[in-house]
Amino acid sequence: MTEANKKLTQLKELGEFGLIDRLTKDIKIKHASTVKGVGDDAAVLDYTDKELVVTTDLLVEGIHFDLTYTPLKHLGYKAVVVNLSDVYAMNAIPKQITVSIALSGKFSLEAVELLYSGIHKACEHYQVDLIGGDTTSSVTGLAISITAIGEVEKGQAVYRNGANPGDLICVSGDLGSAYAGLQILNREKAVYQVNPNSQPDMSAYDYVLERQLKPEARKDIVEALKKAAIKPTSMIDVSDGLSSEILHICKQSNCGAKIMDADLPIDAQTMHVAEELNMDASLLALSGGEDYELLFTINPDDLTKINLVEGVQVIGEIVPADQEVRLYGKSGGSTAITAQGWNAYS
Amino acid sequence: MTEANKKLTQLKELGEFGLIDRLTKDIKIKHASTVKGVGDDAAVLDYTDKELVVTTDLLVEGIHFDLTYTPLKHLGYKAVVVNLSDVYAMNAIPKQITVSIALSGKFSLEAVELLYSGIHKACEHYQVDLIGGDTTSSVTGLAISITAIGEVEKGQAVYRNGANPGDLICVSGDLGSAYAGLQILNREKAVYQVNPNSQPDMSAYDYVLERQLKPEARKDIVEALKKAAIKPTSMIDVSDGLSSEILHICKQSNCGAKIMDADLPIDAQTMHVAEELNMDASLLALSGGEDYELLFTINPDDLTKINLVEGVQVIGEIVPADQEVRLYGKSGGSTAITAQGWNAYS
Repeated sequence: MTEANKKLTQLKELGEFGLIDRLTKDIKIKHASTVKGVGDDAAVLDYTDKELVVTTDLLVEGIHFDLTYTPLKHLGYKAVVVNLSDVYAMNAIPKQITVSIALSGKFSLEAVELLYSGIHKACEHYQVDLIGGDTTSSVTGLAISITAIGEVEKGQAVYRNGANPGDLICVSGDLGSAYAGLQILNREKAVYQVNPNSQPDMSAYDYVLERQLKPEARKDIVEALKKAAIKPTSMIDVSDGLSSEILHICKQSNCGAKIMDADLPIDAQTMHVAEELNMDASLLALSGGEDYELLFTINPDDLTKINLVEGVQVIGEIVPADQEVRLYGKSGGSTAITAQGWNAYS
Repeated sequence: MTEANKKLTQLKELGEFGLIDRLTKDIKIKHASTVKGVGDDAAVLDYTDKELVVTTDLLVEGIHFDLTYTPLKHLGYKAVVVNLSDVYAMNAIPKQITVSIALSGKFSLEAVELLYSGIHKACEHYQVDLIGGDTTSSVTGLAISITAIGEVEKGQAVYRNGANPGDLICVSGDLGSAYAGLQILNREKAVYQVNPNSQPDMSAYDYVLERQLKPEARKDIVEALKKAAIKPTSMIDVSDGLSSEILHICKQSNCGAKIMDADLPIDAQTMHVAEELNMDASLLALSGGEDYELLFTINPDDLTKINLVEGVQVIGEIVPADQEVRLYGKSGGSTAITAQGWNAYS
């Protein structure tokens, strides 16, 4: 045992309630809708005059994250962000989260506190209250389950099923960068396993790595759309890749889509990584996933208004269902878009 | 591969979305407060004029359940019940749940459907809407994370911190039986491992086994208290054992408690198992856990009313903090009650 290890606190010394006390002692409630937070059988909320949205995600070590290159603080932050992203995708504002974690014996209190420091940081940044959760042990590895609750004015929630032929298809930010970052991390992990003394210079990849390790949810876009008086006809967040998400919208809205390859927003660093790894940049943008951007459709009358919203790109148009969901290349040819999103069971 | 195995559907054939479609296709919404259930980034709820309660639990294979003797359908049912029990413990009525599961490759579609059949059965029995969730893979084993949402009239939530000296301590049902059932299951598992052909006669243990494998949440007690016009001063559900729960109430209410050993409700079958296993029946009742009964305190003026509520036993009295939390024996002596609840990390 090294000196550093000696100082770490074993979770069994604390017990479940000791750990909960430690992790929740500094929580300050931010919202009047949080009547009672952590510390009882359940939290109590007051959502008079608003509709609530509720979403949940379960992240599992070895499936969704690799602790060899994911700092625990970043992981905590990202675990919150992926849930908030779903709330924003409903045109709602997140207000509360619950956090449950299962931990194997390999984790010390200090490791759990690092994870929670990222969770708390996300709660601060996005102004959400941590109102409850569960901590338990696991046989192997770490699992994090987060439920996020948000509010929206009655009737203002935006679903996946409201797109109509003629609507413009818009996406925020850029696509494929998080997946590009993942590819770089996996490459460097392989190099490290061969030569643990390698000191890679990662400065050329700073943007794509940050997109993978510390994504942000597009609160700013939801706020900007509201300010611009645009209510999208449909909306979804890009977690599994653009292809998968546009197919969800088209399936639920019973329509097709025409996506213009030339209009896909791709960052220069993503382009560079794609070239370096001999991958097609458009394919990265379509199938990469974990972008946590917002994909939405708007009435064509809102074109002038959307052009004034920073960070949004019009990438195509909703068409009748019989025209399928197709990607139109620069030369005019087109190919059908099929789901190449992540299959958790393959 | 046996014939039976050949017919099972591998999850990778379905993919995540195929699995979700399959598991959620028969869901019918029961509540007007469920504006939108499964199928979007988040569910949408309308809780005008009510307060909401929110609770969450994470169950992990090898820690909370053992699939060698837990039927998957029972597991699904129990996973829902343990969350609903927390909602009832707030004096609230559960209305919606989200369910997230992580599954390793050893599970077939049919296995997952069995698990969900138990989840759906609990949703029917307790009249709650399944409104969302997440399904993903895991490296090993099964994890289930459920969040339950319920409603309560404004100001009617009952917390852990409202007990006052002089209040009567009450508990529903009986205690220790679920833990007695667990001991029997563990004993029979050990026998089975030595002799796989053993055919144990479990009929003498039917009650304690059901309490362990298929517990119920005490919806009836919350309804009966309301009907009797009793609002408890504090309430908690018995998941970790009576000792642990009364300590929670006393810590949060800043008081002590006098618990009468002779008044602890213990079923005859639990008594019998305790004797058979050479365990103290009172200790089972105090430390067993997983009873999912309600432990609550009432104003002494409500004694006449509580005596008319079936299935509730008065087991003691709240006392000032300096008198500690103590168990009073039949002979008059007393011992301090300390938490012997489950420590997930030991």
